[in-house]
Amino acid sequence: MRECVFCQIVRRESPAYIVYEDDSTIAFKDINPQAPVHILVIPKRHIRTLLDIQSSDEPLLGHLFSVANTVAREHGIAQRGFRLVMNCGLESGQSVWHIHLHVLGGRKMGWPPG
Amino acid sequence: MRECVFCQIVRRESPAYIVYEDDSTIAFKDINPQAPVHILVIPKRHIRTLLDIQSSDEPLLGHLFSVANTVAREHGIAQRGFRLVMNCGLESGQSVWHIHLHVLGGRKMGWPPG
Repeated sequence: MRECVFCQIVRRESPAYIVYEDDSTIAFKDINPQAPVHILVIPKRHIRTLLDIQSSDEPLLGHLFSVANTVAREHGIAQRGFRLVMNCGLESGQSVWHIHLHVLGGRKMGWPPG
Repeated sequence: MRECVFCQIVRRESPAYIVYEDDSTIAFKDINPQAPVHILVIPKRHIRTLLDIQSSDEPLLGHLFSVANTVAREHGIAQRGFRLVMNCGLESGQSVWHIHLHVLGGRKMGWPPG
């Protein structure tokens, strides 16, 4: 069974451009950026999809928003504006099965959001 | 000063097709849907943008994800997949200044997300 690449990034077994880390969370640049700033914020704990979260995970999930704010401020997109995206399941385009919050900014974002 | 339309929806002073409600959170259909299912999940408390959240708000913010799961299950898009989007600030396209999580599904979502 192939190991989760995001878990490997957490353990520094796969390379990534890490921009933020704390006890529960890590953030790194998306390798296929869709905007001038495109960073992924993930919980260190392996959670396969959003559907797998429990109510006890809500503080952890909410913390991803705070980290997104921190990342946006540090990358100069907080005041201009930024978009957060989380995909869940095949039709959304989820491609890594470890939940991740996309932080996108540095350009005007279009609507619909994909 | 014009009142926040989402606060008016919370108080039932503006019409909305409400699909979920609990003590802290309410969800209703987007009036300009971008997918077959397009629902907004918001905290009842007025929070202007994501940048205004405090660390004490993390459980509340995380709860929006749980409600998004509930809404996705009840609208038959949980297994097919769905996308969550939150805009913050002008370049993201935020148009109502009360934070809201978009839940979109019922079609294949494209990439980039806008």
